[in-house]
Formats: sequence, C-alpha cells, structure tokens
Amino acid sequence: MSDITVVGGGIIGLSIAWRLVARGADVTVLDGGDEGAWHVAAGMLAPGGESEHEDPALIRLLDRSADLWPAFAEELGVDVGYDKTGTLSLALTADDLAGRARLWTRQQLPLLRPSELRSLEPALSVRVRAGVLASRERQVDPRRVVNALRERLSDRIVPKRIESLSDVDARVVVVAAGCGTAALTGLPVRPVKGQVLRLRGEPGLLRHVLDAAVDGNEVYIVPRADGEVVVGATQEERTDRLVTAGGVHDLLRAALEIVPGLAEFELTETTVGHRPGTPDNAPMLGRLDDRVVVAAGHFRNGILLAPVTADLIAGVVLDGQDVADFSPRRF
Amino acid sequence: MSDITVVGGGIIGLSIAWRLVARGADVTVLDGGDEGAWHVAAGMLAPGGESEHEDPALIRLLDRSADLWPAFAEELGVDVGYDKTGTLSLALTADDLAGRARLWTRQQLPLLRPSELRSLEPALSVRVRAGVLASRERQVDPRRVVNALRERLSDRIVPKRIESLSDVDARVVVVAAGCGTAALTGLPVRPVKGQVLRLRGEPGLLRHVLDAAVDGNEVYIVPRADGEVVVGATQEERTDRLVTAGGVHDLLRAALEIVPGLAEFELTETTVGHRPGTPDNAPMLGRLDDRVVVAAGHFRNGILLAPVTADLIAGVVLDGQDVADFSPRRF
Repeated sequence: MSDITVVGGGIIGLSIAWRLVARGADVTVLDGGDEGAWHVAAGMLAPGGESEHEDPALIRLLDRSADLWPAFAEELGVDVGYDKTGTLSLALTADDLAGRARLWTRQQLPLLRPSELRSLEPALSVRVRAGVLASRERQVDPRRVVNALRERLSDRIVPKRIESLSDVDARVVVVAAGCGTAALTGLPVRPVKGQVLRLRGEPGLLRHVLDAAVDGNEVYIVPRADGEVVVGATQEERTDRLVTAGGVHDLLRAALEIVPGLAEFELTETTVGHRPGTPDNAPMLGRLDDRVVVAAGHFRNGILLAPVTADLIAGVVLDGQDVADFSPRRF
Repeated sequence: MSDITVVGGGIIGLSIAWRLVARGADVTVLDGGDEGAWHVAAGMLAPGGESEHEDPALIRLLDRSADLWPAFAEELGVDVGYDKTGTLSLALTADDLAGRARLWTRQQLPLLRPSELRSLEPALSVRVRAGVLASRERQVDPRRVVNALRERLSDRIVPKRIESLSDVDARVVVVAAGCGTAALTGLPVRPVKGQVLRLRGEPGLLRHVLDAAVDGNEVYIVPRADGEVVVGATQEERTDRLVTAGGVHDLLRAALEIVPGLAEFELTETTVGHRPGTPDNAPMLGRLDDRVVVAAGHFRNGILLAPVTADLIAGVVLDGQDVADFSPRRF
C-alpha cells in the first residue's frame, strides 16, 4: 500500500503522480488500461481559442497552465513535440468570418488577408477568406507526453481496473479517471464523443496549427514535425465508440477545403475519444471528502490543463490547499 | 508434383482449379498469400453497366458469365450473397443525367422519376434527379465466394510465392496471378488502384445496388443482407497501397449525396486493391506457350468473369480449345 493512490493512468493522473513523486510523496498509479481522451487528442495548447463563452476563472486557469507548459515539457527530458510556431485561426466564408470576428477582435489580433495568410502558410486554399495569427498558441504531442510520463513513473504504475474506491487501500485517493470518474464518485462527468483522424505525408506541407471555421463547422489541423497531421474533431453528445461515415466525411471535407494538398496524404487512423464534460464544462479539482481528491472533467482542455492540475492537486494533497473556483463540491 | 499447377489463389485461380478438379484433373494451387483484388471488390455483376466503350466480344463474354453465375453460386453449396434485387443506376445532377442517358437508352431501360426511384429505394436523397432499374444486374460477396472455394479446394492449396515459372514443377502451368502476372510472364498487366470503403449499420436501409454519377464522379453502393455496405471505388493509375484522405473523402461525399442516411453508419474498413488492367482492358485467356496458360487481366470484371473463365480455361487445358478473342498472344 502506498500513501497516495492515483486512479487513472491518462495524462492528468500521470502528471499529478509525477508532481507528487517530485515532491517526495509515496505514490501508486492504477491504470485501468483504456486509452483516454489523450490518445486521440491533437494537443493544441490554445488558452484563448475557446474563451468566448467561458468564465474568467477558467480563462485564468488556462492561461496559467499555458505558461507552465514550457517548463513542464522541458522537465520531461525528451522531445514531446512542444512547438511554438503558433496557430492560424481561419474563416472560409463570409459567414464564418462574421462568426469568428468577435473573438478575434477581443483577442486584439489583426485580421490577415488571404495573401498574407498564404505567405505564412502556402498550402492554404485560395478560398480561405480571412484569418489571424495567434502567435502565442502552442502544440504538443499528447502521445509523446504520456509515453514520457509512463517511462518516468514506470515502477509506480500498476495495471488495474477498479470498480469502487473502497477497493483502493491508501490514505489518499486521487481520482483522475476522466469519463470513468462518474461511476467511481457519482460526480456528473459525461462523455462527449470526438472523432479524430490522423493523416501522414511528406513533412513540411504545413507549418502552423490551423483552427478553422468551414461553412459553419469547426476543424483543426495540427501538423507534427514528422509528417503526421491530426484532423479533428467532431463533438457529439454520445457514448458510443463508432467511427461514422458522416463524421469522417465532415472532417475530411473541412480539412480539404482549407488545405487541398492534404488529399494526397495517407489516412492512417480514424479514432474516437470521449472528452470528460461537466455541467459547466470546467474541471473539478479538489477534495471531495477526507480521503478522496478529484481531478477530472477537463473537457476539451485536458492536455493544456495537465501542468496546472498537477501543481494544484499536489497542493491539495500535500499542503492542504483549496482550489476554490473548481471544487467538485460545486455540483 | 501435380499434373496442373495454378499460380494464384484469388477468385480466378480458385475458380479455374475448382472446375479442373470437377473434371477430374490433378491440380495444385500456389497461393502467394497476398489478398487480391477480390478482397476489396464489391461483387457487382453488371454486364451491361460499362459497355459503352467496350468491344462486342467482351460484352458477349460478360453476358455469358452473368448467365453462368446462378449455377456457379448454387454449386458452391453455401450462401455467397448472390442477390437478384437488381441495380439502380442513378444520376444526381442534370449533367450526370446527360452523361448516363445515352447508356440507358442503349440498354432500353425506362427512365424513372425521383418519386418512382424513392418508392423503390426510400433512403435515396431527394436530390437524385433520375435513374433506371437494371433489374437483370446481380451482386455476390467476393469474400464469401473465395472462402467457399478455399474450403472446397483446401487440400489442393499450397501457400507458396514463386518468383519465376521455372520454379513450378508441373506439366501445365495456369497463371492466374492478377497484377502479379506481369512479372511472371512479361505480359502487359498494369495495376489500377482502387480505394474501397466498407460501412456497417442496421440492415434494411437499402435494398438495391446503387451505381451513381455524382457531380461527374462515379460511386457504387452495395448493400449486403447483414448490414455491410460497400462503397467504391477510386480508379487511379497508381501502384501504391495508400488509403488517402482525398480518396476516402470523395467516396464518402458521393455516397452521402446519394444516401444521406449512411452518415450514421460505422466506417469499418478502408482498403486498397489493384485491378489487373491490360492495354485494351479485356482479359487474357489462353495458351501462352506449350506449357503455360494465362487467365489474367480481368480489370474491373474479375468477379463477374470468374465462372466463364473457369469453363474456358478448363477447355484450353483439358480439351485443347482456343479462346480466340482473348488470346494473351495478342499483345
């Protein structure tokens, strides 16, 4: 028996365990074996990208974690694909532009014309109507991050799926089980299905992360240095794991509208993940009772929020701190 | 050593071997282990569907093999998905209609209005402009056919890839190696790449095979009784085996334009096959020299032509007959 057991071997659970271990704690991670949302996630680190309807406390949390990422990636000691090129936020049609203009204005990002966009990213379609360069946005490869964390924690990870927290023999239990947190705690975490594609081709077609509104749909296109391109994601209030004809079609259509040259890329993966959503789509971070601490419900921001979650939960567990705005007891 | 060795364990090689065995011959099949074009083929048995530019001898051959299929399927003794519902040939736009009208006129098939089409096939998009019912067309499941042939010939199939016909110790060698025939014989067989998708959903959405012109592209949609739906196919003069973003997109787009309800179907397979094309896209059937007989180059008609090929090659090998119009020596 370890003093602290983390339930969940995804990017949140591993990040927390790593931080706890760094602070000298005695930690075990129980990994239920399912690949979590991190496995399909593109790894966009975009604190400002979705802030239109979000609450100020969440925006501060996102910003704070974005600031922590460079050191977090550095400490992992291997290349996890942390990339600072930045993101082009794009609008295909006039309606798409109208939809994005308010966000861009609030972010105080200057509008770029098509010719300016194509000088930054020559592979863009001539049909793209406008965009902005969000030069502070970043990307990281979540699979590389999890692999690095797994290596650093290898002697502390136990492959074990539990059905109840009463099966866990530890003084402190940190539940970081993504969508599985609902069954373990009764907290309202719901799965939000996302279909994500991976393409592969010659590296160098794209430089920036692309985040586009395409005829009213949203698509992101995340190019890795090795020629992988992640295209995502549908957002469906469904629990199934089916890759559907409609989902794949919509993603490919939007991606090819923005970057026609991707048509020649190999379609190497079609995957499904489930974002752990909460009623307000903000995470649940903090103490549930004397023994149980929760770190779950990161919705679309699990990769971005991993570093700050690790720090905050270490503070809860080791220093008796609170995470006032995100207590799981708000539900 | 068998008296006759068939090189190639695809639908053509197996059909020939089966017929030779039925006629009492001593036969071995060498199966190189690659899954041939049959593995991705939809199994449309459509002798009239592509006849606009084809030569009369080939049309006669296609018709003759279509007539042989019912008995061929019956003799296999298991359900191979032979289905007589027929094919709806469809045109989405006015341009598509103009493109297909000549073929339909020549086939003397009466034009059906959208309302008539939808009473035959309620899942069709309201956008489909016109179509005809080719009630004599059929489908079969090529994977079931090959499985049935493999079972019947199991003690005669040797898993072995050969590099040269001089490695084959037999009095008669029948080369039925699809695209691999070129390397073995020097004959001009070229691979024509096709990308094919398989979807799966509730059985019953569709009844007919659909063969549609969609904004200038061609797509077929072949529903099986068990809920599988085959969607194909690209036609690319390429040798690679890449499933591409553009290929999958184009197939899904065309299929969803014709049958919007397929959007909810699971995308279960994305595959690539290579049709064995010849300079005139007609097959090569007959004697190449004293020892070697060829049955290859069936291009898009390998499934349809399997029964007649088996009969004709048995005649060449056992009765000394000729297949005048399709001799491999014409090249």
